Amino acid sequence: MTKVAFQGEPGAYSEVAALALLGAEAETVPCETFEAVFQAVEEGRAERGVIPIENSLAGSIHRNYDLLLRHELHIVGEYHLRVRHCLLALPGVRLEAVRRVYSHPQALAQCEGYLRRLGEVEAVPAHDTAGSARLLRERGDREAAAIASRRAAEVYGMEVLTDGIEDDPANFTRFLALAQEPVDPGEDAKTSLVFTLVNRPGALYEALGVFARRGIDLTKMESRPLVGKPWEYLFYLDFAGSPDQPEMRAALEDLEKIAPWLRVLGAYPRHRLG
Amino acid sequence: MTKVAFQGEPGAYSEVAALALLGAEAETVPCETFEAVFQAVEEGRAERGVIPIENSLAGSIHRNYDLLLRHELHIVGEYHLRVRHCLLALPGVRLEAVRRVYSHPQALAQCEGYLRRLGEVEAVPAHDTAGSARLLRERGDREAAAIASRRAAEVYGMEVLTDGIEDDPANFTRFLALAQEPVDPGEDAKTSLVFTLVNRPGALYEALGVFARRGIDLTKMESRPLVGKPWEYLFYLDFAGSPDQPEMRAALEDLEKIAPWLRVLGAYPRHRLG
Repeated sequence: MTKVAFQGEPGAYSEVAALALLGAEAETVPCETFEAVFQAVEEGRAERGVIPIENSLAGSIHRNYDLLLRHELHIVGEYHLRVRHCLLALPGVRLEAVRRVYSHPQALAQCEGYLRRLGEVEAVPAHDTAGSARLLRERGDREAAAIASRRAAEVYGMEVLTDGIEDDPANFTRFLALAQEPVDPGEDAKTSLVFTLVNRPGALYEALGVFARRGIDLTKMESRPLVGKPWEYLFYLDFAGSPDQPEMRAALEDLEKIAPWLRVLGAYPRHRLG
Repeated sequence: MTKVAFQGEPGAYSEVAALALLGAEAETVPCETFEAVFQAVEEGRAERGVIPIENSLAGSIHRNYDLLLRHELHIVGEYHLRVRHCLLALPGVRLEAVRRVYSHPQALAQCEGYLRRLGEVEAVPAHDTAGSARLLRERGDREAAAIASRRAAEVYGMEVLTDGIEDDPANFTRFLALAQEPVDPGEDAKTSLVFTLVNRPGALYEALGVFARRGIDLTKMESRPLVGKPWEYLFYLDFAGSPDQPEMRAALEDLEKIAPWLRVLGAYPRHRLG
Protein backbone atom coordinates (compact mmCIF):
# COMPACT_ATOMS: atom_id res chain seq x y z
CA MET A 1 0.00 0.00 0.00
CA THR A 2 1.45 3.37 -1.00
CA LYS A 3 2.12 5.73 1.89
CA VAL A 4 1.58 9.40 1.07
CA ALA A 5 2.58 12.27 3.38
CA PHE A 6 0.56 15.50 3.52
CA GLN A 7 0.54 18.61 5.72
CA GLY A 8 -2.39 18.96 8.09
CA GLU A 9 -4.80 16.81 10.03
CA PRO A 10 -6.82 13.86 8.73
CA GLY A 11 -9.63 15.34 6.62
CA ALA A 12 -7.52 18.27 5.35
CA TYR A 13 -7.91 19.30 1.70
CA SER A 14 -4.32 18.14 1.16
CA GLU A 15 -5.41 14.65 2.20
CA VAL A 16 -8.30 14.79 -0.27
CA ALA A 17 -5.80 15.69 -3.01
CA ALA A 18 -3.40 12.94 -1.85
CA LEU A 19 -6.13 10.31 -2.19
CA ALA A 20 -7.18 11.67 -5.59
CA LEU A 21 -3.57 11.43 -6.78
CA LEU A 22 -2.62 8.08 -5.23
CA GLY A 23 -5.95 6.25 -5.14
CA ALA A 24 -8.44 5.74 -2.32
CA GLU A 25 -6.51 2.75 -0.99
CA ALA A 26 -3.34 4.77 -0.29
CA GLU A 27 -2.32 5.21 3.33
CA THR A 28 -2.14 8.90 4.23
CA VAL A 29 0.52 10.15 6.68
CA PRO A 30 -0.37 13.46 8.37
CA CYS A 31 2.58 15.86 8.96
CA GLU A 32 2.65 19.04 11.03
CA THR A 33 4.61 21.12 8.54
CA PHE A 34 5.41 21.15 4.80
CA GLU A 35 9.06 20.61 5.69
CA ALA A 36 8.01 17.40 7.48
CA VAL A 37 6.28 16.20 4.28
CA PHE A 38 9.56 16.52 2.37
CA GLN A 39 11.45 14.76 5.17
CA ALA A 40 8.96 11.87 5.29
CA VAL A 41 9.60 11.19 1.59
CA GLU A 42 13.38 11.69 1.82
CA GLU A 43 13.64 9.30 4.74
CA GLY A 44 11.42 6.71 3.07
CA ARG A 45 8.63 6.86 5.66
CA ALA A 46 6.33 7.71 2.75
CA GLU A 47 6.70 6.86 -0.96
CA ARG A 48 4.96 10.08 -1.95
CA GLY A 49 4.40 13.55 -0.56
CA VAL A 50 1.61 15.89 -1.65
CA ILE A 51 1.86 19.69 -1.30
CA PRO A 52 -0.26 22.62 -2.53
CA ILE A 53 1.65 24.85 -4.98
CA GLU A 54 -0.89 27.45 -6.14
CA ASN A 55 -4.45 28.53 -5.54
CA SER A 56 -6.74 30.28 -8.00
CA LEU A 57 -7.54 33.03 -5.48
CA ALA A 58 -4.43 33.18 -3.31
CA GLY A 59 -1.67 32.64 -5.90
CA SER A 60 1.56 30.63 -5.98
CA ILE A 61 2.80 29.30 -2.67
CA HIS A 62 6.39 30.57 -2.89
CA ARG A 63 7.26 28.89 0.39
CA ASN A 64 6.66 25.48 -1.17
CA TYR A 65 8.73 26.43 -4.22
CA ASP A 66 11.48 27.27 -1.72
CA LEU A 67 11.16 23.83 -0.17
CA LEU A 68 11.28 22.21 -3.64
CA LEU A 69 14.59 24.01 -4.22
CA ARG A 70 16.01 23.16 -0.80
CA HIS A 71 15.23 19.45 -1.21
CA GLU A 72 16.11 16.98 -3.95
CA LEU A 73 12.72 15.38 -4.59
CA HIS A 74 11.05 15.08 -8.01
CA ILE A 75 7.58 16.24 -9.01
CA VAL A 76 5.80 13.09 -10.23
CA GLY A 77 2.19 14.26 -10.51
CA GLU A 78 -0.25 17.16 -10.26
CA TYR A 79 -3.89 17.51 -9.31
CA HIS A 80 -6.32 20.44 -9.44
CA LEU A 81 -8.70 20.23 -6.49
CA ARG A 82 -11.87 22.24 -6.42
CA VAL A 83 -12.01 23.51 -2.84
CA ARG A 84 -15.59 22.76 -1.86
CA HIS A 85 -16.31 23.85 1.69
CA CYS A 86 -18.97 22.01 3.71
CA LEU A 87 -20.72 22.96 6.93
CA LEU A 88 -20.30 20.00 9.30
CA ALA A 89 -21.92 19.23 12.65
CA LEU A 90 -22.31 16.29 15.01
CA PRO A 91 -25.00 13.80 13.92
CA GLY A 92 -28.51 15.03 14.62
CA VAL A 93 -27.55 18.69 15.08
CA ARG A 94 -29.84 20.89 12.99
CA LEU A 95 -28.78 24.05 11.20
CA GLU A 96 -31.08 26.15 13.42
CA ALA A 97 -29.18 25.01 16.53
CA VAL A 98 -25.82 26.29 15.28
CA ARG A 99 -24.58 29.33 17.20
CA ARG A 100 -20.86 29.22 16.36
CA VAL A 101 -18.96 28.23 13.22
CA TYR A 102 -15.31 27.18 13.56
CA SER A 103 -12.69 27.15 10.82
CA HIS A 104 -9.43 28.59 9.53
CA PRO A 105 -9.87 32.37 9.05
CA GLN A 106 -9.31 32.00 5.29
CA ALA A 107 -12.15 29.44 5.02
CA LEU A 108 -14.38 31.65 7.20
CA ALA A 109 -13.61 34.56 4.86
CA GLN A 110 -14.35 32.45 1.78
CA CYS A 111 -17.80 31.59 3.19
CA GLU A 112 -18.54 35.09 4.49
CA GLY A 113 -21.67 35.55 2.37
CA TYR A 114 -23.13 32.19 3.43
CA LEU A 115 -22.40 32.89 7.12
CA ARG A 116 -24.04 36.31 6.89
CA ARG A 117 -27.18 34.72 5.45
CA LEU A 118 -27.20 32.21 8.34
CA GLY A 119 -27.92 35.11 10.68
CA GLU A 120 -26.80 35.18 14.30
CA VAL A 121 -23.79 32.90 14.23
CA GLU A 122 -20.34 33.70 15.55
CA ALA A 123 -17.37 32.90 13.30
CA VAL A 124 -14.63 31.40 15.48
CA PRO A 125 -11.06 31.07 14.13
CA ALA A 126 -9.29 27.69 14.29
CA HIS A 127 -5.82 26.46 13.23
CA ASP A 128 -7.21 24.60 10.21
CA THR A 129 -10.39 23.35 8.59
CA ALA A 130 -10.16 19.65 9.52
CA GLY A 131 -8.94 20.54 13.02
CA SER A 132 -12.11 22.53 13.61
CA ALA A 133 -14.17 19.40 12.87
CA ARG A 134 -12.01 17.31 15.23
CA LEU A 135 -12.47 20.00 17.92
CA LEU A 136 -16.28 19.75 17.78
CA ARG A 137 -16.07 15.95 17.91
CA GLU A 138 -13.76 16.05 20.96
CA ARG A 139 -15.89 18.59 22.80
CA GLY A 140 -19.21 17.03 21.77
CA ASP A 141 -20.31 20.58 20.96
CA ARG A 142 -23.89 20.47 19.64
CA GLU A 143 -24.30 24.24 19.23
CA ALA A 144 -21.46 24.62 16.77
CA ALA A 145 -20.53 23.68 13.22
CA ALA A 146 -17.22 23.53 11.34
CA ILE A 147 -16.26 24.53 7.81
CA ALA A 148 -14.18 21.73 6.31
CA SER A 149 -14.04 19.13 3.54
CA ARG A 150 -16.61 16.36 3.03
CA ARG A 151 -13.82 13.95 3.91
CA ALA A 152 -13.44 15.59 7.34
CA ALA A 153 -17.09 14.68 7.99
CA GLU A 154 -16.27 11.03 7.26
CA VAL A 155 -13.08 11.05 9.32
CA TYR A 156 -14.70 12.55 12.43
CA GLY A 157 -18.14 10.94 12.10
CA MET A 158 -19.98 14.17 11.38
CA GLU A 159 -22.82 15.16 9.11
CA VAL A 160 -22.74 17.60 6.21
CA LEU A 161 -25.41 20.23 6.89
CA THR A 162 -24.68 22.16 3.67
CA ASP A 163 -22.31 21.44 0.81
CA GLY A 164 -20.50 24.01 -1.37
CA ILE A 165 -20.94 27.03 0.90
CA GLU A 166 -18.02 29.04 -0.51
CA ASP A 167 -18.93 32.42 -2.01
CA ASP A 168 -16.73 31.95 -5.08
CA PRO A 169 -16.97 28.49 -6.67
CA ALA A 170 -13.86 29.20 -8.79
CA ASN A 171 -11.63 28.16 -5.90
CA PHE A 172 -9.08 25.60 -7.08
CA THR A 173 -5.83 24.48 -5.54
CA ARG A 174 -3.14 22.82 -7.60
CA PHE A 175 -1.31 20.07 -5.69
CA LEU A 176 1.97 18.37 -6.61
CA ALA A 177 2.99 14.78 -5.82
CA LEU A 178 6.66 14.32 -4.87
CA ALA A 179 8.89 11.25 -4.83
CA GLN A 180 12.56 10.29 -4.44
CA GLU A 181 12.77 9.05 -8.03
CA PRO A 182 11.35 10.51 -11.25
CA VAL A 183 8.51 8.74 -13.10
CA ASP A 184 7.78 8.15 -16.78
CA PRO A 185 5.50 11.13 -17.47
CA GLY A 186 3.78 9.46 -20.43
CA GLU A 187 2.48 11.11 -23.61
CA ASP A 188 0.46 13.97 -22.12
CA ALA A 189 3.21 15.35 -19.91
CA LYS A 190 4.09 18.57 -18.18
CA THR A 191 7.50 19.76 -16.97
CA SER A 192 8.25 22.28 -14.21
CA LEU A 193 11.44 24.38 -14.16
CA VAL A 194 13.00 27.08 -12.01
CA PHE A 195 15.79 29.28 -13.35
CA THR A 196 17.53 32.62 -12.93
CA LEU A 197 18.50 35.14 -15.61
CA VAL A 198 21.08 37.89 -15.82
CA ASN A 199 19.42 41.18 -15.02
CA ARG A 200 18.98 43.03 -18.28
CA PRO A 201 15.95 44.02 -20.35
CA GLY A 202 15.13 41.32 -22.88
CA ALA A 203 16.64 38.41 -20.94
CA LEU A 204 13.24 36.88 -20.25
CA TYR A 205 12.21 37.45 -23.88
CA GLU A 206 15.29 35.56 -25.05
CA ALA A 207 14.58 32.72 -22.60
CA LEU A 208 11.00 32.34 -23.82
CA GLY A 209 12.24 32.36 -27.42
CA VAL A 210 13.81 28.97 -26.75
CA PHE A 211 10.29 27.58 -26.36
CA ALA A 212 8.44 29.83 -28.81
CA ARG A 213 10.55 28.92 -31.82
CA ARG A 214 9.83 25.24 -31.19
CA GLY A 215 6.09 25.78 -30.73
CA ILE A 216 6.19 24.58 -27.12
CA ASP A 217 3.15 25.52 -25.06
CA LEU A 218 3.90 27.27 -21.75
CA THR A 219 1.31 26.53 -19.07
CA LYS A 220 2.82 28.73 -16.35
CA MET A 221 5.26 31.63 -16.32
CA GLU A 222 5.99 33.65 -13.23
CA SER A 223 8.80 35.94 -12.15
CA ARG A 224 9.57 36.11 -8.48
CA PRO A 225 11.79 38.85 -7.12
CA LEU A 226 14.35 37.60 -4.64
CA VAL A 227 13.89 39.43 -1.38
CA GLY A 228 16.95 41.39 -0.30
CA LYS A 229 18.30 41.12 -3.86
CA PRO A 230 16.13 43.71 -5.56
CA TRP A 231 17.61 43.07 -9.00
CA GLU A 232 17.47 39.30 -9.00
CA TYR A 233 14.58 37.13 -10.02
CA LEU A 234 13.64 33.49 -10.00
CA PHE A 235 11.49 32.36 -12.90
CA TYR A 236 8.97 29.56 -12.56
CA LEU A 237 8.01 27.96 -15.84
CA ASP A 238 5.84 24.94 -16.71
CA PHE A 239 5.58 23.64 -20.26
CA ALA A 240 3.55 20.95 -22.02
CA GLY A 241 5.87 18.05 -22.80
CA SER A 242 8.79 16.29 -21.16
CA PRO A 243 12.58 16.32 -21.58
CA ASP A 244 12.26 12.76 -23.01
CA GLN A 245 11.07 14.40 -26.22
CA PRO A 246 13.96 15.60 -28.46
CA GLU A 247 12.44 19.07 -29.12
CA MET A 248 11.93 19.68 -25.42
CA ARG A 249 15.41 18.47 -24.59
CA ALA A 250 16.88 20.83 -27.20
CA ALA A 251 14.88 23.73 -25.71
CA LEU A 252 16.23 22.98 -22.25
CA GLU A 253 19.78 22.78 -23.61
CA ASP A 254 19.34 26.20 -25.21
CA LEU A 255 17.87 27.62 -22.01
CA GLU A 256 20.85 26.31 -20.03
CA LYS A 257 23.11 28.47 -22.24
CA ILE A 258 21.15 31.59 -21.22
CA ALA A 259 20.23 30.87 -17.61
CA PRO A 260 23.05 31.13 -15.04
CA TRP A 261 21.15 28.58 -12.96
CA LEU A 262 18.37 26.14 -13.87
CA ARG A 263 16.70 23.18 -12.25
CA VAL A 264 14.12 20.79 -13.67
CA LEU A 265 11.77 20.07 -10.76
CA GLY A 266 10.10 17.16 -12.55
CA ALA A 267 8.21 15.83 -15.55
CA TYR A 268 4.86 14.23 -14.83
CA PRO A 269 1.47 13.28 -16.29
CA ARG A 270 -0.62 16.39 -16.87
CA HIS A 271 -3.90 16.70 -14.99
CA ARG A 272 -6.52 18.35 -17.16
CA LEU A 273 -9.36 19.96 -15.35
CA GLY A 274 -12.80 19.27 -16.77
CA MET B 1 -6.10 65.39 6.09
CA THR B 2 -5.99 62.50 3.65
CA LYS B 3 -8.30 59.62 4.50
CA VAL B 4 -6.96 56.20 3.55
CA ALA B 5 -9.04 53.00 3.66
CA PHE B 6 -7.45 49.63 4.54
CA GLN B 7 -8.74 46.13 5.29
CA GLY B 8 -8.47 44.99 8.88
CA GLU B 9 -8.50 46.40 12.37
CA PRO B 10 -6.48 49.36 13.64
CA GLY B 11 -2.89 48.13 14.03
CA ALA B 12 -3.08 45.77 11.02
CA TYR B 13 -0.04 45.54 8.74
CA SER B 14 -2.18 47.14 6.01
CA GLU B 15 -2.56 50.19 8.24
CA VAL B 16 1.21 50.32 8.75
CA ALA B 17 1.62 50.30 4.96
CA ALA B 18 -1.11 52.94 4.54
CA LEU B 19 0.71 55.31 6.90
CA ALA B 20 4.04 54.62 5.19
CA LEU B 21 2.45 55.49 1.83
CA LEU B 22 0.35 58.48 2.87
CA GLY B 23 2.34 59.90 5.77
CA ALA B 24 1.90 59.52 9.52
CA GLU B 25 -0.68 62.34 9.63
CA ALA B 26 -3.12 60.51 7.31
CA GLU B 27 -6.43 59.37 8.79
CA THR B 28 -6.82 55.60 8.43
CA VAL B 29 -10.27 54.12 7.76
CA PRO B 30 -10.60 50.43 8.79
CA CYS B 31 -12.77 48.27 6.48
CA GLU B 32 -14.00 44.74 7.05
CA THR B 33 -13.28 43.45 3.54
CA PHE B 34 -11.09 44.33 0.55
CA GLU B 35 -14.25 45.02 -1.43
CA ALA B 36 -15.18 47.63 1.19
CA VAL B 37 -11.78 49.33 0.68
CA PHE B 38 -12.57 49.78 -3.04
CA GLN B 39 -16.07 51.04 -2.24
CA ALA B 40 -14.78 53.56 0.30
CA VAL B 41 -12.54 55.10 -2.40
CA GLU B 42 -15.21 54.94 -5.13
CA GLU B 43 -17.77 56.63 -2.91
CA GLY B 44 -15.32 59.30 -1.79
CA ARG B 45 -15.33 58.30 1.88
CA ALA B 46 -11.57 57.90 1.52
CA GLU B 47 -9.19 59.58 -0.96
CA ARG B 48 -6.95 56.53 -1.03
CA GLY B 49 -7.24 52.79 -0.48
CA VAL B 50 -4.33 50.50 0.36
CA ILE B 51 -4.37 46.77 -0.44
CA PRO B 52 -1.75 44.00 -0.32
CA ILE B 53 -1.01 42.57 -3.77
CA GLU B 54 1.80 40.05 -3.24
CA ASN B 55 3.85 38.52 -0.48
CA SER B 56 7.36 37.14 -0.77
CA LEU B 57 6.35 33.84 0.84
CA ALA B 58 2.67 33.50 -0.09
CA GLY B 59 2.65 34.86 -3.66
CA SER B 60 0.35 37.17 -5.63
CA ILE B 61 -3.05 37.83 -4.12
CA HIS B 62 -5.18 37.01 -7.18
CA ARG B 63 -8.33 37.99 -5.33
CA ASN B 64 -7.11 41.59 -5.14
CA TYR B 65 -6.19 41.55 -8.84
CA ASP B 66 -9.78 40.44 -9.44
CA LEU B 67 -11.05 43.41 -7.45
CA LEU B 68 -8.75 45.76 -9.41
CA LEU B 69 -10.39 44.46 -12.60
CA ARG B 70 -13.91 44.65 -11.27
CA HIS B 71 -13.47 48.26 -10.14
CA GLU B 72 -12.27 51.35 -11.99
CA LEU B 73 -9.69 52.72 -9.58
CA HIS B 74 -6.09 53.61 -10.47
CA ILE B 75 -2.92 52.38 -8.83
CA VAL B 76 -1.15 55.53 -7.62
CA GLY B 77 1.61 54.11 -5.40
CA GLU B 78 3.35 51.02 -4.09
CA TYR B 79 5.15 50.10 -0.88
CA HIS B 80 7.17 47.06 0.16
CA LEU B 81 6.60 46.37 3.84
CA ARG B 82 8.89 44.11 5.79
CA VAL B 83 6.47 42.07 7.91
CA ARG B 84 8.09 42.24 11.33
CA HIS B 85 6.07 40.32 13.91
CA CYS B 86 6.19 41.40 17.57
CA LEU B 87 5.10 39.59 20.70
CA LEU B 88 2.78 41.97 22.57
CA ALA B 89 1.35 41.81 26.07
CA LEU B 90 -0.43 44.10 28.53
CA PRO B 91 1.92 46.50 30.34
CA GLY B 92 3.90 44.82 33.12
CA VAL B 93 3.27 41.27 31.89
CA ARG B 94 6.58 39.37 31.77
CA LEU B 95 7.49 36.81 29.14
CA GLU B 96 7.61 34.06 31.81
CA ALA B 97 3.93 34.66 32.65
CA VAL B 98 2.74 34.02 29.09
CA ARG B 99 0.80 30.74 28.74
CA ARG B 100 -1.08 31.41 25.49
CA VAL B 101 -0.17 33.26 22.31
CA TYR B 102 -2.98 34.56 20.08
CA SER B 103 -2.73 35.46 16.40
CA HIS B 104 -3.81 34.66 12.85
CA PRO B 105 -2.80 31.04 12.04
CA GLN B 106 -0.46 32.31 9.30
CA ALA B 107 1.39 34.57 11.76
CA LEU B 108 1.50 31.73 14.31
CA ALA B 109 2.99 29.49 11.62
CA GLN B 110 5.54 32.17 10.64
CA CYS B 111 6.72 32.33 14.27
CA GLU B 112 6.61 28.59 14.88
CA GLY B 113 10.33 28.29 15.70
CA TYR B 114 10.19 31.16 18.19
CA LEU B 115 7.08 29.75 19.88
CA ARG B 116 8.69 26.34 20.19
CA ARG B 117 11.70 27.89 21.92
CA LEU B 118 9.35 29.67 24.36
CA GLY B 119 8.41 26.27 25.74
CA GLU B 120 5.01 25.51 27.26
CA VAL B 121 2.81 28.03 25.48
CA GLU B 122 -0.39 27.29 23.61
CA ALA B 123 -0.82 28.85 20.16
CA VAL B 124 -4.42 30.10 19.87
CA PRO B 125 -5.85 31.08 16.46
CA ALA B 126 -7.50 34.49 15.99
CA HIS B 127 -9.17 36.27 13.05
CA ASP B 128 -6.23 38.61 12.54
CA THR B 129 -3.02 39.86 14.13
CA ALA B 130 -4.24 43.25 15.35
CA GLY B 131 -7.53 41.73 16.50
CA SER B 132 -5.65 39.35 18.78
CA ALA B 133 -4.03 42.37 20.51
CA ARG B 134 -7.43 44.06 20.89
CA LEU B 135 -8.81 40.82 22.38
CA LEU B 136 -6.17 40.72 25.13
CA ARG B 137 -6.79 44.39 25.91
CA GLU B 138 -10.57 43.85 26.14
CA ARG B 139 -10.22 40.75 28.32
CA GLY B 140 -7.40 42.17 30.45
CA ASP B 141 -5.70 38.82 29.95
CA ARG B 142 -2.32 38.85 31.74
CA GLU B 143 -1.37 35.26 30.96
CA ALA B 144 -1.47 35.72 27.22
CA ALA B 145 0.42 37.51 24.45
CA ALA B 146 -0.44 38.39 20.85
CA ILE B 147 1.61 38.31 17.65
CA ALA B 148 1.02 41.56 15.78
CA SER B 149 2.71 44.71 14.47
CA ARG B 150 4.51 47.26 16.65
CA ARG B 151 1.75 49.67 15.68
CA ALA B 152 -0.84 47.34 17.24
CA ALA B 153 1.05 47.73 20.55
CA GLU B 154 0.66 51.52 20.28
CA VAL B 155 -3.00 51.33 19.25
CA TYR B 156 -4.05 49.05 22.11
CA GLY B 157 -1.64 50.34 24.77
CA MET B 158 0.44 47.20 24.96
CA GLU B 159 4.13 46.48 25.37
CA VAL B 160 6.43 44.77 22.91
CA LEU B 161 8.00 41.80 24.72
CA THR B 162 10.07 40.71 21.70
CA ASP B 163 10.50 42.27 18.27
CA GLY B 164 11.14 40.44 14.97
CA ILE B 165 10.07 36.96 16.10
CA GLU B 166 9.33 35.60 12.60
CA ASP B 167 11.40 32.56 11.58
CA ASP B 168 12.10 33.91 8.08
CA PRO B 169 13.10 37.59 7.99
CA ALA B 170 12.63 37.67 4.19
CA ASN B 171 8.91 38.27 4.64
CA PHE B 172 7.81 41.25 2.57
CA THR B 173 4.37 42.31 1.42
CA ARG B 174 3.91 44.66 -1.50
CA PHE B 175 1.01 47.06 -1.02
CA LEU B 176 -0.70 49.25 -3.64
CA ALA B 177 -2.31 52.63 -3.09
CA LEU B 178 -5.51 53.24 -5.08
CA ALA B 179 -7.36 56.41 -6.03
CA GLN B 180 -10.21 57.60 -8.24
CA GLU B 181 -7.84 59.64 -10.42
CA PRO B 182 -4.39 58.80 -11.78
CA VAL B 183 -1.31 60.64 -10.49
CA ASP B 184 1.83 61.97 -12.16
CA PRO B 185 4.17 59.01 -11.61
CA GLY B 186 7.33 61.13 -11.88
CA GLU B 187 10.71 60.12 -13.32
CA ASP B 188 11.25 56.82 -11.52
CA ALA B 189 7.93 55.26 -12.43
CA LYS B 190 6.40 51.82 -12.65
CA THR B 191 3.34 50.73 -14.63
CA SER B 192 1.06 47.75 -13.98
CA LEU B 193 -0.90 45.99 -16.74
CA VAL B 194 -3.26 43.05 -17.10
CA PHE B 195 -3.93 41.48 -20.51
CA THR B 196 -5.06 38.33 -22.24
CA LEU B 197 -3.49 36.58 -25.23
CA VAL B 198 -4.79 34.19 -27.84
CA ASN B 199 -3.93 30.66 -26.84
CA ARG B 200 -1.06 29.56 -29.04
CA PRO B 201 2.58 28.75 -28.36
CA GLY B 202 4.72 31.85 -28.79
CA ALA B 203 2.00 34.40 -28.02
CA LEU B 204 3.63 35.40 -24.75
CA TYR B 205 7.03 35.56 -26.44
CA GLU B 206 5.63 37.94 -29.02
CA ALA B 207 4.02 40.08 -26.31
CA LEU B 208 7.28 40.38 -24.39
CA GLY B 209 9.09 41.29 -27.61
CA VAL B 210 7.21 44.57 -27.59
CA PHE B 211 9.14 45.50 -24.43
CA ALA B 212 12.40 43.68 -25.15
CA ARG B 213 13.11 45.45 -28.43
CA ARG B 214 12.78 48.80 -26.68
CA GLY B 215 15.00 47.79 -23.77
CA ILE B 216 12.15 48.19 -21.27
CA ASP B 217 12.77 46.50 -17.92
CA LEU B 218 10.01 44.16 -16.73
CA THR B 219 9.72 44.03 -12.95
CA LYS B 220 6.93 41.46 -12.81
CA MET B 221 5.56 38.85 -15.20
CA GLU B 222 3.01 36.28 -14.19
CA SER B 223 0.55 34.08 -16.07
CA ARG B 224 -2.64 33.18 -14.32
CA PRO B 225 -4.83 30.43 -15.69
CA LEU B 226 -8.51 31.33 -15.72
CA VAL B 227 -10.44 28.80 -13.70
CA GLY B 228 -13.06 26.95 -15.69
CA LYS B 229 -11.37 28.16 -18.89
CA PRO B 230 -8.41 25.81 -18.97
CA TRP B 231 -6.93 27.35 -22.12
CA GLU B 232 -7.23 30.99 -21.17
CA TYR B 233 -4.77 33.03 -19.21
CA LEU B 234 -4.51 36.46 -17.70
CA PHE B 235 -1.05 37.99 -17.73
CA TYR B 236 0.11 40.38 -15.04
CA LEU B 237 2.99 42.58 -16.10
CA ASP B 238 4.78 45.49 -14.41
CA PHE B 239 7.43 47.52 -16.19
CA ALA B 240 9.81 50.31 -15.24
CA GLY B 241 8.54 53.52 -16.82
CA SER B 242 5.19 55.15 -17.52
CA PRO B 243 2.95 55.59 -20.57
CA ASP B 244 3.88 59.32 -20.49
CA GLN B 245 7.21 58.32 -22.02
CA PRO B 246 7.02 57.93 -25.84
CA GLU B 247 8.86 54.57 -25.91
CA MET B 248 6.54 53.11 -23.31
CA ARG B 249 3.47 54.43 -25.06
CA ALA B 250 4.65 52.88 -28.32
CA ALA B 251 5.20 49.54 -26.54
CA LEU B 252 1.68 49.62 -25.15
CA GLU B 253 0.26 50.46 -28.58
CA ASP B 254 2.07 47.45 -30.04
CA LEU B 255 0.87 45.22 -27.22
CA GLU B 256 -2.70 46.34 -27.85
CA LYS B 257 -2.39 44.94 -31.38
CA ILE B 258 -1.52 41.49 -29.99
CA ALA B 259 -3.62 41.31 -26.83
CA PRO B 260 -7.38 40.78 -27.31
CA TRP B 261 -7.88 42.60 -24.01
CA LEU B 262 -5.59 44.91 -22.05
CA ARG B 263 -5.95 47.25 -19.12
CA VAL B 264 -3.42 49.63 -17.60
CA LEU B 265 -4.05 49.45 -13.87
CA GLY B 266 -1.93 52.51 -13.14
CA ALA B 267 1.41 54.29 -13.39
CA TYR B 268 2.97 55.36 -10.11
CA PRO B 269 6.24 56.27 -8.37
CA ARG B 270 8.37 53.20 -7.90
CA HIS B 271 9.24 52.15 -4.35
CA ARG B 272 12.76 50.77 -4.19
CA LEU B 273 13.48 48.52 -1.30
CA GLY B 274 16.79 49.13 0.47
